[in-house]
Amino acid sequence: MALIVQKYGGTSMGSPERIKNVARRVAKWKAQGHQVVVVVSAMSGETNRLIALAKEIQDYPDPRELDVIMSTGEQVTIGLLSMALNEIGVPAKSYCGWQVRVTTDSSHTKARIQSIDDAAMRADLSAGRVVVVAGFQGIDENGSITTLGRGGSDTSAVAMAAALGADECQIYTDVDGVYTTDPRVVPEARRLKTITFEEMIEMASLGSKVLQIRSVEFAGKYKVRLRVLSSFEDEGEGTLITFEEDENMEKAVVAGIAFDRNEARINVKGVPDKPGIAYQILGPIADANIEVDMIIQNVGENGTTDFSFTVPRGEFQRTLAILRDVQTHIGAGKIDADDKVAKVSIVGVGMRSHCGIASTMFRTLAEEGINIQMISTSEIKVSVLIDEKYLELAVRVLHKVFGLDQVQA
Amino acid sequence: MALIVQKYGGTSMGSPERIKNVARRVAKWKAQGHQVVVVVSAMSGETNRLIALAKEIQDYPDPRELDVIMSTGEQVTIGLLSMALNEIGVPAKSYCGWQVRVTTDSSHTKARIQSIDDAAMRADLSAGRVVVVAGFQGIDENGSITTLGRGGSDTSAVAMAAALGADECQIYTDVDGVYTTDPRVVPEARRLKTITFEEMIEMASLGSKVLQIRSVEFAGKYKVRLRVLSSFEDEGEGTLITFEEDENMEKAVVAGIAFDRNEARINVKGVPDKPGIAYQILGPIADANIEVDMIIQNVGENGTTDFSFTVPRGEFQRTLAILRDVQTHIGAGKIDADDKVAKVSIVGVGMRSHCGIASTMFRTLAEEGINIQMISTSEIKVSVLIDEKYLELAVRVLHKVFGLDQVQA
Repeated sequence: MALIVQKYGGTSMGSPERIKNVARRVAKWKAQGHQVVVVVSAMSGETNRLIALAKEIQDYPDPRELDVIMSTGEQVTIGLLSMALNEIGVPAKSYCGWQVRVTTDSSHTKARIQSIDDAAMRADLSAGRVVVVAGFQGIDENGSITTLGRGGSDTSAVAMAAALGADECQIYTDVDGVYTTDPRVVPEARRLKTITFEEMIEMASLGSKVLQIRSVEFAGKYKVRLRVLSSFEDEGEGTLITFEEDENMEKAVVAGIAFDRNEARINVKGVPDKPGIAYQILGPIADANIEVDMIIQNVGENGTTDFSFTVPRGEFQRTLAILRDVQTHIGAGKIDADDKVAKVSIVGVGMRSHCGIASTMFRTLAEEGINIQMISTSEIKVSVLIDEKYLELAVRVLHKVFGLDQVQA
Repeated sequence: MALIVQKYGGTSMGSPERIKNVARRVAKWKAQGHQVVVVVSAMSGETNRLIALAKEIQDYPDPRELDVIMSTGEQVTIGLLSMALNEIGVPAKSYCGWQVRVTTDSSHTKARIQSIDDAAMRADLSAGRVVVVAGFQGIDENGSITTLGRGGSDTSAVAMAAALGADECQIYTDVDGVYTTDPRVVPEARRLKTITFEEMIEMASLGSKVLQIRSVEFAGKYKVRLRVLSSFEDEGEGTLITFEEDENMEKAVVAGIAFDRNEARINVKGVPDKPGIAYQILGPIADANIEVDMIIQNVGENGTTDFSFTVPRGEFQRTLAILRDVQTHIGAGKIDADDKVAKVSIVGVGMRSHCGIASTMFRTLAEEGINIQMISTSEIKVSVLIDEKYLELAVRVLHKVFGLDQVQA
């Protein structure tokens, strides 16, 4: 018998019929003798509906009151799922965030969990009940309702699992796990049985948006065994996110190929090579709330250097407009920009102990005639920026050269 | 400076535009120097939407979970109204039932209020804030969310006023007060400046459904000054509900004429005149959850008697079907039934001290050729059942004969 925390997202809770399906799945785990705590999101679309309602009253809704309103989405689904469980003979009881004292700080709309009181949940579990908890929400020290920000239900589930010392935290989504890459691009892509915590973070931030990053960090911090599963398929073990390197001894060097089409590249040429120049260029862009992804500055020569960075494609024109002011101010040369670029990354903890991974990547791309525009690396990933039209080809050849087509050991 | 509790119903909160109107009204009271606590209902239609959603999961929704779901309706409107107040520069803060500890018993979907913790509200009022509280909801001793049943927001408002020792509890509705009778039937009907607590109860239960009866009883118990006002008109003092007889010394004997078209009459003839017969007839009807209104049994002769009662018109056929079984069982004679009847009642505390009111009523109806089918009386009202086609005529002549057309003293 194990204690399992399961989390179902908005799509899984999207209709009464789907909620009944979730209840049947929970019942199956219960029937196997497990204790089950279920964390749920609002029905898909509901949170947006509530925000739109609030914006009809205030253009910038009061954050405390917005949390009061938004938190009703999950309050409805915990009630519905508990009913669906009771209806099929599985005793269940719902809890809002405040009812299990999911204590957070007071940063409304993006609060951070501080503690959870597990007493009531434990009593219910001992009495044979399934516990259904509202994700995404908590209560601050003043007794006000808070919410955790987009995707916060994943974090709720992991925090719940940590507080209860659960054997596993299962995140049910509309995919059946984490893949070596997007199967729509590479049909040979395989589901990973395991992925390390660090790889998962790199994969997620690179566009394989299966889990909210904060929840993965939380799981890492509290060593919660985290598994991603499909809520629409009955079979399959999903992907287990591990934290112990030794669990992965037989693992491939590269775990997966991530990619992101939402990139635009900007190259400021002939920038005076002096301290503070990066801030002078990126400061005004950050002030405009534009998120910069890759940043590269080469060693300069003749007192000038080239400065390159990427921004989300939707911010391309706005960024250029800002730069035109900066350009004169800092006395830079011409600006070379391209919004038809894409980022491809190889991710794997094995890179730490294996040399030559990056050069294999570069050679493979060169052999296909794909020019690399920018490179950025971290300890467990290598990202390259290439012409968008080569994206699928690049992902395909990299997936093959690193042996990801083959069945995992 | 006074402390005012205001309650706005679902129609007043029915859209963002209407919520903004409510905010402007509250702001006006605040600007006059009053402390204001506002109790709100869910947006009109929302509670029904939530119940329908629950019924898609369970035909008979689990009451605890239904309360979790239903209570979100008011949780949304407290947030929206607080935002609307903040938006026009009136500092406001929302509270769910559990946040001000509206403690109730555990009778889910029809809970009764036991106590309210006014500390937080008082602190806000002292700090110059408007307090916005969710009506209809509370929390039981187990920390579960409860709701108070249909119209429970009125009761919430009165309970809030009692707990705070408010100077007045104002119930804003879509009518501007309590009338001597329905103005659609008698154009001369006047708004009553005051009505006694007991008259209000009789008027409400007789179909003048302005206030939830339980809230009026609550106001009576805790001597809360209760006023009914229109939320759509800016002027007018509405109707004050009083509890002291001496406030009404100059009052007319009859305060108003209530009526109800939703009646069907059943007359069981030749019933054996022996103990237990009323139970044998009405027991099966009560078991079928049919609410019986008037009940009359005459003194019998020759060992038999006639037994008459009324039921809601929609239950007429079902009642007859039940009675056909009972009829044979108890050996009754024939059943005479009519669903084209209506009840007209005169209500007034003055009847206690004035004789001849009932006979004036009967004489007036007789002069118009209106036959009285059944009569039932209480200390402060007389009800008669008549042919429905005479309803308007009866109400009109009674309104006139008791001087209700004239301006109130």
